[in-house]
Amino acid sequence: MSAQLQTAVVGATGYAGFELARILGRHPRLAKPLLFSREPGNSIDLTDYYPHVLGNGQLRVHAFDWQKLSDSKVDLLFLATPHETSREWAPEALKRGMRVIDLSGAWRLKQETHRAIYGFHDADAALASTVSGKAVYGLPELRSKQISGSTLIANPGCYATSVIVGLAPLVAAGVINRSAGIVCDSKSGVSGAGKQPTSTTHFVEVADNLSAYGVFTHRHLGEILEQLNLQDDELTFTPHLLPIPRGILSTIYVRLEQAMTPVEIESIYSKFYAGKPWVRLFGTKLPQIRYSLHTNYCDVGFNLSPDGKRLVIVSCLDNLMKGAAGQAVQNMNVMFGFDEKDGLN
Amino acid sequence: MSAQLQTAVVGATGYAGFELARILGRHPRLAKPLLFSREPGNSIDLTDYYPHVLGNGQLRVHAFDWQKLSDSKVDLLFLATPHETSREWAPEALKRGMRVIDLSGAWRLKQETHRAIYGFHDADAALASTVSGKAVYGLPELRSKQISGSTLIANPGCYATSVIVGLAPLVAAGVINRSAGIVCDSKSGVSGAGKQPTSTTHFVEVADNLSAYGVFTHRHLGEILEQLNLQDDELTFTPHLLPIPRGILSTIYVRLEQAMTPVEIESIYSKFYAGKPWVRLFGTKLPQIRYSLHTNYCDVGFNLSPDGKRLVIVSCLDNLMKGAAGQAVQNMNVMFGFDEKDGLN
Amino acid sequence: MSAQLQTAVVGATGYAGFELARILGRHPRLAKPLLFSREPGNSIDLTDYYPHVLGNGQLRVHAFDWQKLSDSKVDLLFLATPHETSREWAPEALKRGMRVIDLSGAWRLKQETHRAIYGFHDADAALASTVSGKAVYGLPELRSKQISGSTLIANPGCYATSVIVGLAPLVAAGVINRSAGIVCDSKSGVSGAGKQPTSTTHFVEVADNLSAYGVFTHRHLGEILEQLNLQDDELTFTPHLLPIPRGILSTIYVRLEQAMTPVEIESIYSKFYAGKPWVRLFGTKLPQIRYSLHTNYCDVGFNLSPDGKRLVIVSCLDNLMKGAAGQAVQNMNVMFGFDEKDGLN
Amino acid sequence: MSAQLQTAVVGATGYAGFELARILGRHPRLAKPLLFSREPGNSIDLTDYYPHVLGNGQLRVHAFDWQKLSDSKVDLLFLATPHETSREWAPEALKRGMRVIDLSGAWRLKQETHRAIYGFHDADAALASTVSGKAVYGLPELRSKQISGSTLIANPGCYATSVIVGLAPLVAAGVINRSAGIVCDSKSGVSGAGKQPTSTTHFVEVADNLSAYGVFTHRHLGEILEQLNLQDDELTFTPHLLPIPRGILSTIYVRLEQAMTPVEIESIYSKFYAGKPWVRLFGTKLPQIRYSLHTNYCDVGFNLSPDGKRLVIVSCLDNLMKGAAGQAVQNMNVMFGFDEKDGLN
Repeated sequence: MSAQLQTAVVGATGYAGFELARILGRHPRLAKPLLFSREPGNSIDLTDYYPHVLGNGQLRVHAFDWQKLSDSKVDLLFLATPHETSREWAPEALKRGMRVIDLSGAWRLKQETHRAIYGFHDADAALASTVSGKAVYGLPELRSKQISGSTLIANPGCYATSVIVGLAPLVAAGVINRSAGIVCDSKSGVSGAGKQPTSTTHFVEVADNLSAYGVFTHRHLGEILEQLNLQDDELTFTPHLLPIPRGILSTIYVRLEQAMTPVEIESIYSKFYAGKPWVRLFGTKLPQIRYSLHTNYCDVGFNLSPDGKRLVIVSCLDNLMKGAAGQAVQNMNVMFGFDEKDGLN
Repeated sequence: MSAQLQTAVVGATGYAGFELARILGRHPRLAKPLLFSREPGNSIDLTDYYPHVLGNGQLRVHAFDWQKLSDSKVDLLFLATPHETSREWAPEALKRGMRVIDLSGAWRLKQETHRAIYGFHDADAALASTVSGKAVYGLPELRSKQISGSTLIANPGCYATSVIVGLAPLVAAGVINRSAGIVCDSKSGVSGAGKQPTSTTHFVEVADNLSAYGVFTHRHLGEILEQLNLQDDELTFTPHLLPIPRGILSTIYVRLEQAMTPVEIESIYSKFYAGKPWVRLFGTKLPQIRYSLHTNYCDVGFNLSPDGKRLVIVSCLDNLMKGAAGQAVQNMNVMFGFDEKDGLN
Repeated sequence: MSAQLQTAVVGATGYAGFELARILGRHPRLAKPLLFSREPGNSIDLTDYYPHVLGNGQLRVHAFDWQKLSDSKVDLLFLATPHETSREWAPEALKRGMRVIDLSGAWRLKQETHRAIYGFHDADAALASTVSGKAVYGLPELRSKQISGSTLIANPGCYATSVIVGLAPLVAAGVINRSAGIVCDSKSGVSGAGKQPTSTTHFVEVADNLSAYGVFTHRHLGEILEQLNLQDDELTFTPHLLPIPRGILSTIYVRLEQAMTPVEIESIYSKFYAGKPWVRLFGTKLPQIRYSLHTNYCDVGFNLSPDGKRLVIVSCLDNLMKGAAGQAVQNMNVMFGFDEKDGLN
Repeated sequence: MSAQLQTAVVGATGYAGFELARILGRHPRLAKPLLFSREPGNSIDLTDYYPHVLGNGQLRVHAFDWQKLSDSKVDLLFLATPHETSREWAPEALKRGMRVIDLSGAWRLKQETHRAIYGFHDADAALASTVSGKAVYGLPELRSKQISGSTLIANPGCYATSVIVGLAPLVAAGVINRSAGIVCDSKSGVSGAGKQPTSTTHFVEVADNLSAYGVFTHRHLGEILEQLNLQDDELTFTPHLLPIPRGILSTIYVRLEQAMTPVEIESIYSKFYAGKPWVRLFGTKLPQIRYSLHTNYCDVGFNLSPDGKRLVIVSCLDNLMKGAAGQAVQNMNVMFGFDEKDGLN
């Protein structure tokens, strides 16, 4: 592309939106991004919210305004907005000729049974259905071709990314004993719960603690099942809230159809992720959360039982990077034919 | 007393109120305390808020109700309520014949210039003024006689307690060069900011961080000045927010009128706090926050400069215990002639 | 018993040993405990290591000395020592007529295949074998009768306790589909790794992090298998290191032989633990680590899948209490016919 | 310079040395840096210590070897080594024609009374004295001219940097009432204590805690006094250990010679630091530790008392960046005429 791409971010004051604004601001292929907040009112200086961007130039966040988007000829709109907002604004943006990468859960799920948990009330159900049909689940390691031709990307959930990246090669290789069931025990830092202060994110409730939540009911479960083509009872997923600001570690347990060697497992992963710059394979060493913090990597390692029939996979990522903003930029890179690593180093 | 004392706590779902409920529930001289929440509505089970009290018997928290207090013949009312509420309810409780220990800042300050920062709007200013005149600042190490005869105790602020306990013996001994100024650099855990979720108490904002706030303007400054009889420009107090759930450490800097020895300093402290069970003197060893956690101790240690003219005092306490609920119980013990340690071990 | 029991603790400067010394010092049925360190040398003041016990009376820790034990007519010896030391000293203590509660892994495992991981080199293999035969696995919820008659208690591992308490009722009831495999995903605070500074326990390595370790190889796995009578391939256990000082949460995944209801599951647990004061059942609410901190409770809750065939159990405890020192005292209470709660409230 | 500069780092496996290796590896004006460990033995892969650098290319750390330095024509040697090692190796490196930036305390102090605290035993005292005379204290905001002509830079201490940057403009302006004394209350994250595991850096000892240490005796005190030309009794400095991995916040208290306005104070700072890219002035807003984490900024803000005579300055930095490795690179940039920001964004 000769001209630089014009992007915009809605929700730039939230954790993921801010991270996104920061990455886009340094991306070599882009014009300076436009930043918006959903709230009406006057424009604000992002340094009031995030003083640590001081020195990187003033960053104005504007009250959201369709006209301003048109005037600036925005090519690509990032929505770091609540599910309901994305459900309403993505179709409108598409109608106005923009491409959209949506970081919410609004467009991730294809099956009505899975989507029900969000309880969407679409003003125009037919339109929503059509748009949903066009949406591509934006996990570049699995769907780079579809992403490059897409106008609407549903950026994956943070937990879902860690689990799907850990499991996809094994599912594709058909080595898992699915009838024994897969267990995904995931642990996330608090920024995954968003910037809104609640009793759940109060320091005193989180510190020195660990808690499980959303067992059998978490919204990311549907994504995992759909992307891996698993039946409901084939996978159990339990998220936990860790007393750390950011990072996810998923411990994944599978039984194999037959005994295998570490070399065979390693080979399945390395073939599947050949040429994928943002999956880092640790073999039989296990990644830790801090290794991937502030990077766009999803780190994967595993241990095999002595009899070669049980496999424990550990998958780590930074929930605001590969789990949100970083992956959104990666999707943009694939969409527009940039290098998949641009802006992410 | 032959019969057991009947107590009640308003604000039992907050951090300090809950701690208080827990201590009172095990206090050997008390009937089972009545627990109230300020909010109207049905009574709630405290274990819904604090499941870790499960197994200690069901604890009901009732919507606040003056009639219920009268019916139960409450002798002593603890108010763990916002300043404005305490300002209104303490006079009413006194009128109804109860004694009151108030954990808020409503009645701590005698001087109008210091009190202005709270911006109280009293419906009956004359009554408020009369009540204020009766209120005793409840630091038992300084005012045990006044406390025992009092009907209204203003339970000290957490920061103020740590600073006053650290400084009072030296001020009384007249060894401080006050014209050079005293510096109190205090650091507190997050529970001091209360249970209400705000952006200030959000885990992600607090973790891996330290911040100063309220420099020259914190509400506890007035208490410190009044209790130590210092002029405004003789003491500078800066609070900081620590990434820990509870605990306060104050580092206090004074210049001495003339060179002294550690033994002399130690002697000043040990004489002043002779017979005081809740001040623990470390001499020239320095206390750390964790030593006093979950206890009612205020720990004090110091270091003296080689030339004997500069003194650094370190004072630590648990902001929910000696800094709030524990000290309230200590005040009750003094008020009613119990052993000062009752219920606090 | 008319006279008070004389106890002694070896290893009183470690985390579990110190916790034990603290509990024993307040236990209503005991004489003041004797405290020992393994290290030779002069006796030390425990307050040098743990200044927060200041005010509870001076606590001397003596260099270990068999003669001193005899002179003091010690009835019960607690060993909070390394595995190898316990392997050597427990037989000697038994020979000298003391009863022993050992907090190490020295005597927990009956099967040679499981015990191999410790690599014990017993000077007198025959004696070790005999002693091992007498040792009772001290989980009072499972073996109170054997414990009361025992002379040597192998106090369970912290992880093992959380897993066994969570699973035992279901295994006993025969409702688990064992061929599908059980998954135990456990997370522990850092005190479980002991007081010795290592790169693993360095603050900078642990903070803001989570890591899995010892997959398929952790020493507590054998205990779990033996106590639940499971085959090696029926249970997968993965421990993780949490950035918190203390506490364990185990998330346990089982598939049921047939669909069940929450009421049925709850009934299995409540019957199994009827009259057991230190297991707290949360039903379908899930316990969190902080609920059981500084208590001797093991908290258990569960969630059942909508089809009633998959069960997720969450089990929490304080690794230094129910996971070590508290359980040791509970074992002593059972051994000597005290109330199981004595000294633990 | 036409050819790229060849650098080497000794101590690349420590926290500061690793951070330095990471920055140098991306610096646009440098050849690939050589990395050394002090320990003899085979070369190691840095990713064994820091797996999170995986994907940035293999980084070999060699056992230290003068010959290897010569063979590679190293222009500039960074020593991230213990004080004693730097005291010995810096003169040798100078003799061999290299320029040196030393991150230890070996060459920072000019006055024998201050240096005594290190207890150096120089094999060749005359040489050490000569070399010491040449060493420039590398705080680029104060001494850029001397740095650019220097062959040996003593990279400042982390605490000292935060204090000196906060105070230097005021001292230079002569507005401080020095006879009343300056108080510097500093708080640091644990990485400042180094990578060696000790009881001081054990997670369980640090978490949920705060402690003061080294009062009147910390090694950085001498640097502060010398650089600001203060007498011993004019400044009191107390460091504290924070339960966070990295970052320093210094709260600095001064009394002014006469009443001033915030605008006057702000003007003193902005003139002093005009054109200095790595000091970020916050005016009367106060910086927090997290703002400067992972950057080379020293952030400075202040609050003035209502009467304009007392000033509280807050100064924050990342102890591994502006407090160590980042500042070392900044010094290199000044030394070799690069842009002061090169490699640090």
